[in-house]
Amino acid sequence: MTATGEHTAYETLLWEVSDDDILTLTLNRPDALNAFTVTMARELEHAFRRVNDDDSVAAVVVTGSGRAFCAGMDLSREGNVFGLDESLSPTPEDMRERLDDPEIADGVRDTGGKVALAIFDCTKPVIAAINGPAVGIGATMTLPMDVRLASSSARVGFVFGRLGIVPEACSSWFLPRIVGVPRALEWTLSADIMAPEELLTAGFVREVVEPEALLETAYALARRFTAGRSRVGTALVRRMMWRNAALPHPLEAHRDDSLAMWWTSVHDGKEGVAAFLEKRPAEFTSSASTDLPPWV
Amino acid sequence: MTATGEHTAYETLLWEVSDDDILTLTLNRPDALNAFTVTMARELEHAFRRVNDDDSVAAVVVTGSGRAFCAGMDLSREGNVFGLDESLSPTPEDMRERLDDPEIADGVRDTGGKVALAIFDCTKPVIAAINGPAVGIGATMTLPMDVRLASSSARVGFVFGRLGIVPEACSSWFLPRIVGVPRALEWTLSADIMAPEELLTAGFVREVVEPEALLETAYALARRFTAGRSRVGTALVRRMMWRNAALPHPLEAHRDDSLAMWWTSVHDGKEGVAAFLEKRPAEFTSSASTDLPPWV
Amino acid sequence: MTATGEHTAYETLLWEVSDDDILTLTLNRPDALNAFTVTMARELEHAFRRVNDDDSVAAVVVTGSGRAFCAGMDLSREGNVFGLDESLSPTPEDMRERLDDPEIADGVRDTGGKVALAIFDCTKPVIAAINGPAVGIGATMTLPMDVRLASSSARVGFVFGRLGIVPEACSSWFLPRIVGVPRALEWTLSADIMAPEELLTAGFVREVVEPEALLETAYALARRFTAGRSRVGTALVRRMMWRNAALPHPLEAHRDDSLAMWWTSVHDGKEGVAAFLEKRPAEFTSSASTDLPPWV
Repeated sequence: MTATGEHTAYETLLWEVSDDDILTLTLNRPDALNAFTVTMARELEHAFRRVNDDDSVAAVVVTGSGRAFCAGMDLSREGNVFGLDESLSPTPEDMRERLDDPEIADGVRDTGGKVALAIFDCTKPVIAAINGPAVGIGATMTLPMDVRLASSSARVGFVFGRLGIVPEACSSWFLPRIVGVPRALEWTLSADIMAPEELLTAGFVREVVEPEALLETAYALARRFTAGRSRVGTALVRRMMWRNAALPHPLEAHRDDSLAMWWTSVHDGKEGVAAFLEKRPAEFTSSASTDLPPWV
Repeated sequence: MTATGEHTAYETLLWEVSDDDILTLTLNRPDALNAFTVTMARELEHAFRRVNDDDSVAAVVVTGSGRAFCAGMDLSREGNVFGLDESLSPTPEDMRERLDDPEIADGVRDTGGKVALAIFDCTKPVIAAINGPAVGIGATMTLPMDVRLASSSARVGFVFGRLGIVPEACSSWFLPRIVGVPRALEWTLSADIMAPEELLTAGFVREVVEPEALLETAYALARRFTAGRSRVGTALVRRMMWRNAALPHPLEAHRDDSLAMWWTSVHDGKEGVAAFLEKRPAEFTSSASTDLPPWV
Repeated sequence: MTATGEHTAYETLLWEVSDDDILTLTLNRPDALNAFTVTMARELEHAFRRVNDDDSVAAVVVTGSGRAFCAGMDLSREGNVFGLDESLSPTPEDMRERLDDPEIADGVRDTGGKVALAIFDCTKPVIAAINGPAVGIGATMTLPMDVRLASSSARVGFVFGRLGIVPEACSSWFLPRIVGVPRALEWTLSADIMAPEELLTAGFVREVVEPEALLETAYALARRFTAGRSRVGTALVRRMMWRNAALPHPLEAHRDDSLAMWWTSVHDGKEGVAAFLEKRPAEFTSSASTDLPPWV
């Protein structure tokens, strides 16, 4: 990554922000069907953290350059393609206590998982515009995104079983939440490639559109999530809807949403109620980079 | 609230119990589209706790008076409509340790959440009969109910984002369990109003019927949940199905359902098996107010 | 159970392994509609633990002999049909601290739950081929199986409410994960018998086929889960997809899937990547009985 002018240029990604604050993040290795590399992983982590700091971005659309979304891990590279250290004997204790120790962080931790966690921590809505094949990490990286849209040429496969490995990128946490446990099991046990119709029936994608309409559909949805919306409110909603359903009792959600309600009521909520009573559009002013409550 | 004869009269609710033990609880501020007030919150909490103590009630149907179900928080009131204390600086620790401290209980805790928790703790099945617009707290209060039915004139919206605030009433715990995470995110991020067809496709409502058939459909369903059923068994089922799926491992559910199975087997289950073997209807006698197991 | 030749013969089950390593486990009390007894419970627990130790079994298909799948607990037996000890006063503490104490293990713990936990712990994919009525424990025992298929003569009912008892076999953990909370509530509160169309709409079964096609459909699915697949990878996938979605945060899944990815990458994954690069079928050699990682 090198700094060019006011923004960072990536080797494997394109970063373009529209006039209405929608970032298009394009996986950009079209000659390799946008296959995933360690560089792409590092750049995706960087880009999603940057989104949180950049007030010019209100929502993110992720898509692929050329005819694929992402063909999975680039297996054509020499050496241990997954970058894992075979000389170790990692244990569950290591994963709890030494996660950031370089030996574990670089030699054991799954690269796709670090990307998934960065997307999960994003304070802006994220939409996957799946324009073609999305397999392996190309499929699992879309799971922490909020909505998936597919073009009619999309194909999605959790193909890890064909390689003798397992689904990664926290997909065992995300996939059953999106399509339910039975389909999550069938898709991962079979390692099949799914066509758009199956993806739609399963609720994996929200909508299937013609290839030429994909990005416009994604942008229209992004505008529904951002135009006239509080940036802080949106960040909190995204955080609450993914996390709180995993809590053991609704009382725990009550502790959390009471705080979020209190915070937004005494900030953007005042303008929201005033605008409602005056029958005019609200003009929210909060920033997701500086105005989030201290406990987030 | 004032006592009139044998029952309590509410300012904002109607309480009517049928001959077959079905309570119709009607949100009753028709001139204000049944908009939610602090009084309505207090009365709903009271009513759902009263349901637990009242053996003449076997199931509850909640509906709205006039053309709306509930138009959300009444924003026409003067002052801080949400009743929150802006002078505080509440923290997650406060929400864990001081939840019932008046400062937190009255100045920070979300009013809708207290109502949602009262419905969640109800020992009788609860059916929402959504007869018209249900927005904001009007939408979220239906989430802890067991089944939602809609008339063709129902409209549901988690519109908090339009006001710069966040969904409340523990809805981040309930909504993803009902419609899945992707739709929960889309509905809350967009703050859109959904028509009956979308509600049905999403599994948010069980059925859409003509307005004039709504209450009869709700009563028929309530009878399927109550006629010839053990009151204690029903209370335990409701408790188990909402709570146990949030447990970390099925062994935890096994600890809980073994106890519930033991308790019901040595009580109403004896009559149930005897009636089955004698090919006659069972006559269960347990009370949900006095015969629940001690650990509930 | 008595040993006959190289395998164990069961009183209530048939055990048949095909040339392509698919075990058909048949509930075999056809004159009693395969009603569940304490002997059947003990034999099912034994059989599923045996599957884990037997490398000749790659997947399991469970079906019923004759016209039923399983008509539920055999209530025609004399005495306390559920085998529970009425003289006890079990508490939640007992279920946490004394679960394997004979008094609790035999007098309180639900028999179906022990079977469900054995199926949950199975290291091979399990497919339910529901060939006819499956009610009570006949319904709940299919929940920890990975995929359910139904013949057009299948009927499924969580009929516990008719007997004054509650759904067991950890079904409050499994059922909401499979059909969502609202349907889980409706099915168990109503205690209704569901026809194949409702089972399919709810996502409870993957497919409904004509009775004569049921087993072939199940075998075809089992082959998709096993042919050319790593036995260790499959065991880990099954474990991850059921368990990890119950974790409180995706970081917890990341700890677990990083380890699983590391383990499979340095074992069967090497052959998987080599075969992919050489454009030939992979030949995985791992055993689910001896090659699972030590932390499983």
